[in-house]
Amino acid sequence: MLEINAERLLADLDELSKIGKTPEGGVSRLALSGPDLEARAWFKARVAEAGLDFAKDGAGNLFATLPCSNPEAKILLAGSHLDSVPNGGRFDGPLGVLSAFEALRTIQEAGMSLPVNLQCVSFTDEEGTWIRLMGSRAFAGTLTRALTAAEPALTAGELKNVHGGPDRFAAALAGVGITTDSLLNAQCDPKRYAGFVEVHIEQGPRLEEADLDVGVVTRIFGIHWQWLRFIGEAAHAAGMPMAQRKDALWGASDFVLRAKALVESAFSPGVMNCGQAQFKPETFNIVPAEVRLALEIRHDSPEQMEAMQRQLISLAQACAEEYRLMLEIEPVGQVAPAPLDEGVVDLIQQAATDLGLKQTKLTCFASHDTQTLSAVMPSAMYFVPSVDGISHNPKEFTKPEDVVNAANVMLHTLLGWANKLADG
Amino acid sequence: MLEINAERLLADLDELSKIGKTPEGGVSRLALSGPDLEARAWFKARVAEAGLDFAKDGAGNLFATLPCSNPEAKILLAGSHLDSVPNGGRFDGPLGVLSAFEALRTIQEAGMSLPVNLQCVSFTDEEGTWIRLMGSRAFAGTLTRALTAAEPALTAGELKNVHGGPDRFAAALAGVGITTDSLLNAQCDPKRYAGFVEVHIEQGPRLEEADLDVGVVTRIFGIHWQWLRFIGEAAHAAGMPMAQRKDALWGASDFVLRAKALVESAFSPGVMNCGQAQFKPETFNIVPAEVRLALEIRHDSPEQMEAMQRQLISLAQACAEEYRLMLEIEPVGQVAPAPLDEGVVDLIQQAATDLGLKQTKLTCFASHDTQTLSAVMPSAMYFVPSVDGISHNPKEFTKPEDVVNAANVMLHTLLGWANKLADG
Repeated sequence: MLEINAERLLADLDELSKIGKTPEGGVSRLALSGPDLEARAWFKARVAEAGLDFAKDGAGNLFATLPCSNPEAKILLAGSHLDSVPNGGRFDGPLGVLSAFEALRTIQEAGMSLPVNLQCVSFTDEEGTWIRLMGSRAFAGTLTRALTAAEPALTAGELKNVHGGPDRFAAALAGVGITTDSLLNAQCDPKRYAGFVEVHIEQGPRLEEADLDVGVVTRIFGIHWQWLRFIGEAAHAAGMPMAQRKDALWGASDFVLRAKALVESAFSPGVMNCGQAQFKPETFNIVPAEVRLALEIRHDSPEQMEAMQRQLISLAQACAEEYRLMLEIEPVGQVAPAPLDEGVVDLIQQAATDLGLKQTKLTCFASHDTQTLSAVMPSAMYFVPSVDGISHNPKEFTKPEDVVNAANVMLHTLLGWANKLADG
Repeated sequence: MLEINAERLLADLDELSKIGKTPEGGVSRLALSGPDLEARAWFKARVAEAGLDFAKDGAGNLFATLPCSNPEAKILLAGSHLDSVPNGGRFDGPLGVLSAFEALRTIQEAGMSLPVNLQCVSFTDEEGTWIRLMGSRAFAGTLTRALTAAEPALTAGELKNVHGGPDRFAAALAGVGITTDSLLNAQCDPKRYAGFVEVHIEQGPRLEEADLDVGVVTRIFGIHWQWLRFIGEAAHAAGMPMAQRKDALWGASDFVLRAKALVESAFSPGVMNCGQAQFKPETFNIVPAEVRLALEIRHDSPEQMEAMQRQLISLAQACAEEYRLMLEIEPVGQVAPAPLDEGVVDLIQQAATDLGLKQTKLTCFASHDTQTLSAVMPSAMYFVPSVDGISHNPKEFTKPEDVVNAANVMLHTLLGWANKLADG
């Protein structure tokens, strides 16, 4: 059974870890920063060395392609990202890019002739230094064009309001040879693609606790962020009789408890959280005229997410009315739930089975490039264990055998997929 | 029937209004500021002109005394304060000082021989530029010595932490010839006093709305301020199952609603208010580890205040336990409820009746020097209307006829009280 070159893969991971290395042993490779540029140059050189075709699109996404003999053949895409959060870990992102890259090198060296083009990708700014999932959203077309009701597009105007301001953003884009225009026009032609697969470290302890090698993600939770403004009337806390108050906190408190009960009873595994609130006028002796409550909801089903959102807003409205308050909703953002492609999930599971690995199916709570891609092409992803479930932290660590497993599963998922496409 | 000199009183009020006058027509006479010093000097000169005895105690409180022939006779005290809030009104405080002063002048001019000494007082810093009710608390001894469980004393150490810092405070005290030491030792001998009476503008619209001339205050609400810290555990809003969370907001929300129900059902006319809250770590996607909730409670009965406080803390404890949270209480401050003296209330009512004025009994929600004095001597106070209920505002206005009523009721309350003391 074909296997990837473990030594080469681990050496590449090690070498990449030195770029942007922090004193604590992690990496700081913020998207478009100096260390990120260095990592990009390193990857480009590695691709050239391997004799694969290198390309970069208008979003700065980097591609290594192993072309097949049929120029009309579809492309199988696999990868992740090379950027990191500040003082983050060495595996979050690079594991996915280098596993895909290693799989391509292995197939190339084996001299196999496949009926598809294989492409390894590193997406720009997955971590959101500038814009959350920027590269994959530009590639999928969802950065500037809403593909689903639940995933709003950024407008050109909003692109001017990225973290750090438009001038710093434009300068950072120029550093990798792109512009806001090229970013806005980086959308791929999804018909050219057979699908996408990603491997990532698990950002939690479930695999390790259950002594498993691989977790195949079947669904990625969607997230909906919004502010609920309960608006009453300021009044002297003693001068205004309690029965006549319009106390914004009463409506907000009632909502918190009833929303908890509703989500737990009717929307599991969906969750809600109110992690912050702002009061006006914010003093001991004045009835709060306004409580602005942060509401985050998550679900892995698009239909349930929509129903949960609808029912929670109705509930907030009912709570407001009960206490004679006004309710205003301020949308903040959302990511659509992504039920992943069953066919791709099957391919990953088959690969893991063939390799004799212990596996399970999982739902995923965090956002990944796979979530973006799933809106435009068959996509799935899988996890390998991260020691103690740690991520976004210099202590992030994935054992060498799990790194090797990640790449071997990638290799055989791509081979299985190619076979399936040949049969189809 | 004896009446005060309306023209003289109104002229004095007008003249005083020019000291610290603001462009909006209000006054800024912050305690111990230049304008306050000017007002004090003006008052001292007026007292001398009237041939009354002037005195100042260690707290900078100013006294005008009309002595009687018996040096062993008790003192009847009446007055209020000359300081104001920033850009405040012309009547809040001065009305009480000048009504008492005018009553003393009227009695003196009438050549009446009373069995008590009459004393008009202006208390230092009622508005709390430095320390809330500073002069009356120093005079009553409650600035440095707790007279009731509900009214905590300031320690000498706390006196160093007044607004503006100890150096600015010491310099300000020096401006009126006193020191922190003299302030700490300004306590009167309550046995020398028969009691205290104050007239003040109403800080609300109740008298005006009911077309009444005088509101006799029977009780002043006590206040208790504290922070309730509901302490749970931060957790990823999706990674941690809702059933396993320790969500500080759930306990706090439950407390708000149950506290409201408890106070409304069992402690009316007591009230509770939660006017602000602080969250940790304060972000959309993390379960709040801590909610620090401001709790203010008020009641006009010392016993009910204590019971309400006890039951609310038990309730907060129960809410915390129900959601597996910790509870910590941070006391902020309190003012004891002040049931006013029924005998003095009767004297004020009789005076108003004799003058043919329309009157009612009221409870009072705000703090006044009377509240402080009531802890050490028979005390009561009354209100006259303030147009539209406005106070602490340049627009504050009390009609001349109501100013005159204020002083005439003061005159006849003192005369009635003196008669009663003669009979007793």
